[in-house]
Formats: sequence, C-alpha cells, structure tokens
Amino acid sequence: MPTARDIAAWIQAELTGDPDIEVRDVNAIDGARAGDAVYALDARRLAAAEQTPAAVVLVPRNLASSLKTLLKTDDPRVAFATLVDRFRPPDKPLPGIHASASVARDARIAKTASVGPFAVVEPGTQVGERAVIGAGCALGARSVVGDDTVLSARVAVYHDCRIGARGLVHSGVVIGSDGFGFAQDPSGRHMKIRQIGNVEIGDDVEIGANTAIDRATFGSTLIGDGTKIDNLCHIGHNCRIGKHVLLAAQVGLSGSIEIGDHAILLGQVGVKDHLRIGARAIILPQSGLSQDVPDGTVWFGSPALPRMQREREFAALHRLPELLKRVSRIERKLGTDGAEKERPTE
Amino acid sequence: MPTARDIAAWIQAELTGDPDIEVRDVNAIDGARAGDAVYALDARRLAAAEQTPAAVVLVPRNLASSLKTLLKTDDPRVAFATLVDRFRPPDKPLPGIHASASVARDARIAKTASVGPFAVVEPGTQVGERAVIGAGCALGARSVVGDDTVLSARVAVYHDCRIGARGLVHSGVVIGSDGFGFAQDPSGRHMKIRQIGNVEIGDDVEIGANTAIDRATFGSTLIGDGTKIDNLCHIGHNCRIGKHVLLAAQVGLSGSIEIGDHAILLGQVGVKDHLRIGARAIILPQSGLSQDVPDGTVWFGSPALPRMQREREFAALHRLPELLKRVSRIERKLGTDGAEKERPTE
Amino acid sequence: MPTARDIAAWIQAELTGDPDIEVRDVNAIDGARAGDAVYALDARRLAAAEQTPAAVVLVPRNLASSLKTLLKTDDPRVAFATLVDRFRPPDKPLPGIHASASVARDARIAKTASVGPFAVVEPGTQVGERAVIGAGCALGARSVVGDDTVLSARVAVYHDCRIGARGLVHSGVVIGSDGFGFAQDPSGRHMKIRQIGNVEIGDDVEIGANTAIDRATFGSTLIGDGTKIDNLCHIGHNCRIGKHVLLAAQVGLSGSIEIGDHAILLGQVGVKDHLRIGARAIILPQSGLSQDVPDGTVWFGSPALPRMQREREFAALHRLPELLKRVSRIERKLGTDGAEKERPTE
Repeated sequence: MPTARDIAAWIQAELTGDPDIEVRDVNAIDGARAGDAVYALDARRLAAAEQTPAAVVLVPRNLASSLKTLLKTDDPRVAFATLVDRFRPPDKPLPGIHASASVARDARIAKTASVGPFAVVEPGTQVGERAVIGAGCALGARSVVGDDTVLSARVAVYHDCRIGARGLVHSGVVIGSDGFGFAQDPSGRHMKIRQIGNVEIGDDVEIGANTAIDRATFGSTLIGDGTKIDNLCHIGHNCRIGKHVLLAAQVGLSGSIEIGDHAILLGQVGVKDHLRIGARAIILPQSGLSQDVPDGTVWFGSPALPRMQREREFAALHRLPELLKRVSRIERKLGTDGAEKERPTE
Repeated sequence: MPTARDIAAWIQAELTGDPDIEVRDVNAIDGARAGDAVYALDARRLAAAEQTPAAVVLVPRNLASSLKTLLKTDDPRVAFATLVDRFRPPDKPLPGIHASASVARDARIAKTASVGPFAVVEPGTQVGERAVIGAGCALGARSVVGDDTVLSARVAVYHDCRIGARGLVHSGVVIGSDGFGFAQDPSGRHMKIRQIGNVEIGDDVEIGANTAIDRATFGSTLIGDGTKIDNLCHIGHNCRIGKHVLLAAQVGLSGSIEIGDHAILLGQVGVKDHLRIGARAIILPQSGLSQDVPDGTVWFGSPALPRMQREREFAALHRLPELLKRVSRIERKLGTDGAEKERPTE
Repeated sequence: MPTARDIAAWIQAELTGDPDIEVRDVNAIDGARAGDAVYALDARRLAAAEQTPAAVVLVPRNLASSLKTLLKTDDPRVAFATLVDRFRPPDKPLPGIHASASVARDARIAKTASVGPFAVVEPGTQVGERAVIGAGCALGARSVVGDDTVLSARVAVYHDCRIGARGLVHSGVVIGSDGFGFAQDPSGRHMKIRQIGNVEIGDDVEIGANTAIDRATFGSTLIGDGTKIDNLCHIGHNCRIGKHVLLAAQVGLSGSIEIGDHAILLGQVGVKDHLRIGARAIILPQSGLSQDVPDGTVWFGSPALPRMQREREFAALHRLPELLKRVSRIERKLGTDGAEKERPTE
C-alpha cells in the first residue's frame, strides 16, 4: 500500500505530518474512512476533513494542520484527480470484437480495440488503438473513432463523422444526425435540405449522455480539442466550438454558432443561430443569447445582457412595486392624481 | 363482463343508478363509447359525460346525476387509475432470457424475470423476480434491477448502479453516466475527475424517456421511493432526491442538489448546484433556482423568487411603460424635464 | 456532367451567363470549389459567391451578375434543395431483413423494406414499402411504419404507435413512452394512471435525435403531416400538433396541447398543458406559454406575452435603473425625500 511519502512523490507535493501513513483509497470528505486520501480547498473544508478518519488531506500551500498529514500543492483538485485515476483505474474491456457484433468486412479495427456485443460497424469505418466501442453502438459508414476513445453503450455515430483521440462519449449520444434545415415552399410546406456535411470532433473531448450533435449542411460541425459537453445538449448544424470549452447540461445551440476557446456556457443556455461567443466568455444558466458576446465577458438573462447590466435591472425590478407607490404619492401631492386613469395622450 | 355493482365493490364506491349495467372498458369522456367507465371531477365534466354513451361515471361524493349511473368515491382519479389497471393490464413478456441476449455467466437473473433480445447483462449483475429487461438494454457490471421493475427497450444502466422494486424506466434512459466533474489546470485545460460513485434508485420510481442520471463523484446519487421523473430530465452527480417527488419534463439539476419529499419541479426548471429544495415545495415552469427553497413554498422566475414576490414584480413590470410616461409628466410639471438628458451624477 | 442549361431545365430557372458550363456538385458559398452550384438570396451573398470558383449561382429573379452564370427562380432555396437531392442522393440500404434482426413471425414487412442488424420487430407490426428500420431499432407490437419512412439507428417505437409515409426519424427518438399521468392518493403518493392510448404520426414528418413523444392516456397523441421536430423535444401525452408545424430543438410541450397548422415554436420554448396555439403563430426562443395564443401572433418571454408588449416592457426595464434616480430627484425637490425609508402604509 502506498504511503504519504509515495503519494507526495507521485503528485509532487510538499508533505507535512507522518510520511509513513498508508493510503488505501480516495474519497470525498463526507464519507471518508480510515486510510483515505481526501482534498480540501480552504480552511473550513480542512477543518471538516480533520473530523474524519482520513489518512491524508491534499490542500493548497497556505493551509496547515496539527491533526492530519497534509500534501500541499498549487492545485489540490488537479492533484487529486491524478490520485483518483491511480487508485481507481477504469474497467477496460478486453481487446477484440465480440462474436455478436456486426462489423463490415472492410472496417479497419485496431487489434487493441474492443468492440462490444451487438455493436454495428458499417463499411469503411476506422477504430483506433485501444478504443472501446460499447454494446449496441452503431458506427455509420466511413466514420472514424480515434485512439483510446471510449464509446459507452448505445452511442450512434452517423456516416462520415470523426471523433479524435482519448475521447469519452456517454450512452445515448447521437453524432451526425441531420441539421434542422428546410426551405419553405409557397404553400408553406417545409422542404428538406439534405445535410451532406459531417461532424468533426477533436481530441480529449467528453460528451454527456443523450447529447445530440447535428452534422453540417455542407462542411463540418466542429468540436475543438479538450472541450467537455454535459448531458442532453443540442449542438446545431455547422456550429464551430473552440478548444477547452465547457457546455453544461441541456445547453442548446442553434445552427452556425461560433464559440471561442475556454468559453463556458452554463445549464440550459440557449443561443440564437449565427452568433459568435468570444473566448473565455461565461454565459450564466438559462440565459438566452440573441447577440454576439465579446471575449472574456459574462452574460445573463433571457434575452441575455452583460451581467452587471442585467443584475442592475433585476435589482431595480425588485424596487419597482414600491416605486409605483412612490410615484402615486408624488402625483397626489402634485394634484395630478387622476392622470393615470384619464390616460391623456401625450 | 363486470357490472356497476362489481366495480363499486372493487373501488369501494357508493353507487347511484343502475347496479346491473355492464362495464366493458375504461375511457376518457371525449371518445367514450357504450359500456365505458369514465371519470369526472366536477359538475361541468359530469355534464359532458352525460352527453356520451358511457355506462358509468366515477365522481366525487358531492355530485349527482339523473342520467347516468354514478360511482362516488373520495378520490375518483385514484379509483379510476385502479380500474384502468384492471381493464387494461399491461402486456408482460414471457419469463426467460431471449436466445439472442448476451448475459454474463455469473449474472443472477430470477427465473421469473424476462430478458429481451439483444440485451447485454455484464458480470455480477442481479435481476429480480418478474423484472423485465427490454430489448437492447445494457446492464453494466454489478448493477441491480429490483423485483417487478420494468426497463423498456434500450435503457443503459452503468456499472454498480441499483434500481429498486416496482420501477418503470422508459426507453433511452441512461443511469450512471459520469458526473460533469473537471479540475482546470493552470493552462485552462479541463482534467477529468473520475466519477467513482454510483446511482441508487428507490422503489416505485418511474423515469421518463431519454432522461439521464449521473453517478456520484464519490458516494451515491440518490432517488427516493415513489419519485416520478418525466422525459429528458438531467440529474447531476450527487443529487439526493427525496420520496414522492415529481420532476416534470426537461428539468435540469446540477450537482449535489437536495430535494425534500413531495416537492414538485415543473417543466424546464433549472437548479444551481448544492442547493436545497424543501419538502412539498413547488417550483413553477422554467424557473431558475439560485438559492435554497424553504419547505412548502412556491417559487417562480429566472432567477426564481417566492411566487407572490415574483408575480408582484411581473405585474409592476406591465405598468412600467406607463410609469415612464407618468414620471416624464411630473418632471415637465416641475420644470426638471431635461434632467434625464443631462444625466447628472448624483 | 450536367450543364447549367440542364440544371435550368430541372429547376425551371431563367439562365443568364454560360449555358454550357458544367456543374459537378452542390456546396455552400464558404468552401465552394470549381464546378459547384451554390445559392445566394441577396446581393451581399451573391458578391461573396462571385469571389469563389463556383460554376453557377442560384438567385432570386431580381439579382444580376457580370461574373457568374446565374439561375434565377422565385425561391432559390427550394430550387437548391432539389439540386442537393439530385447531386447527393441519400445512401439507401439494400432491401431485406438482416440475418441478426429479431422479427416476429406475423410481422408484415414489405419485400422492398430494409430491416437492419439487431432490430427487434414485435408481433403484429407492419413495415411499408421501401421503409428502412435502422440498426438496433425496437418496434413494439402492432406498430406501423409507413412507406418510404426511414428510422435511423436505435429508434424505439412502443406498441400500437403509427408513423406515416416518407418520414425520417433520427437516432435515439422514443415514440409512445407513457404520458406523465399520476393520481395523488391522500398520503401524497403518486399512483400511476396507465397510459392506454397511442401516438399517430402523419406523412412527411421529420423527428430529431433523442426527441421523446408520449402516448396518449386515452386516444392518440397526434403529429400532423409535414411537421418537422428538432432534437431533444418533449411532446406530452394527448398533444395534437397540426400540419407543417416547426418545433425547434428542446421545445417542451406538456399534455393536451393543441397547435395549429404552420405554427413555429423556436428553441427551448415550454408550453403549459391544455393550451391552444393558433395556426401560423410564432413563439420566440425560451418563451414560456401560460395562455392560449391566437392565430398568426408572435409571442415572447417567460411568461410569454405578445411580442410587442414584451419588447416594450424589456425596453422600459432597461430604463428602470435611471428611472429610480429620476424619482428620487423629484422626491428630493418636493421634500418627500425620506418617504421611501419611512415606508408609510397607504
């Protein structure tokens, strides 16, 4: 079993306390047991950790404890994520193609890849080294899954779509469904515009359960390297999402939206088509964007405004019922009390 | 065929009218045919029922009719639900494991359970008595499905997740996908924090189509007994949802939210992480919660406020365009008309 | 390879420029290559098209170019959709039932239909001429799929539901899951009301990825001919949606909503149960409808109001922080400055 000293070496931490204490597992502070490593980002959480039987606590460099062995780093959450990987490596299925899978003869499946039961792999498809295609996945013709990418059970990838390396795609995700593109004829019928583009997803992308990413009308819907998408998001056709972007659950992007690197869209945000959201912008939950967002700004509301302006308006709105009374009082004082009832034209 | 008298005995109703009239089926008032049992909660609906050929009407105790045979109970909707079950018992597949299913040797499947075509059951899994695993479901390693629980076609349950007894899980549901947990490194990359907890679902829980419930980072995401979740909901990691809660369609819960028993969240509500929603609270549609909600209160808006306050603000907002004119009028009267244009600092 | 003259004949366009120029493919203006046909709806886009190597440009009748061969029609988008179909006909799988599919003996599958690997077709089901049932689809007992309708991979259709002709249903769609109907018993438990109706979908309907359409409690949830539904929508039980309606992504409809022909609901709109939305009405994104909408009107906001009223209120809200200052100024001038702090009852 590794000791605190071993772990300090793994994560390059400064150790205070007992270097020989053994560490058995990782855990949250709530529920920590003897031998666990936990992390605490501030003094309040460290005090909570001190009340548990945890063996060691990962903390920022400015904290100290007379009760617990500490492992100090610049970023305890990142260090802790490393430890979780080490103590709890993911189950990996054995390489090979399950006997029940339906795999096209010309599909190129790496020898180290795993294809699960009832998976369907259509002609011209490529699956990279150590990739995992979960049970019941459907990979359309000429699609590509990169090295070390894991598709959980029941993912659908339409024809000609590509996923990069080291990705993680959760169950129920649909990649490459048609964009919502129609031309209205004079009688008001919606004629389908066939969607002949594809979806291209970079490396290190995670996609949450039941999210849907539409293929481009022409060209590609793009998801940049390192971007993380939560459950039940909708990505419309021809969106171009940058690198290391976060899309929280149930975000909806209409067509042809461009999102800069490191932007964050929080839960249930909706974005009008053809807008540009700048790099490092933050869009607060349930906001509805109807205009472009400059780099590094924070927006809120439906329709969304820069956060400060929106919050000033909300604060003013709280005072509005009282303001109506104040104005009535003034009108009475001025003898213009009946003005409202008469509704004079002005 | 049962008579009105038989049915009165089944549902312990008071009968007025013809006890010998035969009842063939259950139906809604719109569309009722001869021989049908329908229900009406008020005099207006009873009058509508009287215009149909329905045989009997389930009503509250205070209603009367000279035209129809009535079955009076304290709660006609509950009584009617019982009748629907009686007249239209659900199709149940035959027990047994379909020849095409892929079932791990050590999975413990009850003899009375049914496992459909192309279902995948991984090692260490348990499936209870009379449970139904629909076509194309995927049950991860060491997962548990309780007695009498029905999984419709194409449900995905990740490893180590547990579903109680008498549940109903609709198609496309994903249980146990990873929580959306990342640690940002100094360069702005999002490092995955592996999610090593699980999902634990109580008894008598119904989960709507394409809903996704994430596993906990550590510990368990919990869904209490009797809770009903509609379609396309997102339940984040480490949420603890009480008993007999209702979540309407497209509700989104961030991580670590606690919801008290009997609370109701209506359609498209979104909730910030780590909040507590009290027992019997009601959150109106599309609300966005950014603060804790006390027991038994009703909230509305985005951001949500107590309903009365929010409605007062909305009502005041309707009067705001007129208020702007009233204030301009006052300013003109006072000779301070230009004040706004000058925008003096104050 | 067809010439501009050939294409003008196909789409009945007026040709200006070189009738003999050969057209190889269709494309968007961004990314157009030599030999491509593109379309431009206005002078600005035509100028952009003139900078590309595209062979021909489909334009409205009022545009002209000295640089490019033009094909002029009343509706270039509709004409272009026709061309896309012509140049890029969809891949169609070969007719026949895949050896791995699980098809009930009494299912009636047209000889020209295609049933993919691991599809499940339960007893009494009908699949029409040239229909495609994708990999891993599950068709419940007595369901019907019309002629030329395509179900992508992993669609679930519950028992007794019907889809018309020439439809397109994307991956992960669920048709016929139970409506969210419960009766609360005196102890606050939610008793399920079994949902014994079905879903009936007209002809020429497209349904986006991971959308869920609930069956009716009694009778039918109805989707009219020509209606197009985007990804991740929720359609509650007993909704009656008209013809040629557009529902954008993540729209949520509670139960028993009626929508008139040609109405448009934009992204993330939510609608309260039992409302009626008139024909040709337009509901702007993220709106929350809590009242009926007359034919041909435009609504916005949560709660939604007629667009003009809602925009007047939003515009007034922008002026509210300044208005608070103006009223304070008036109060100071009138010597009633302390009024707000005293909060007198009135």
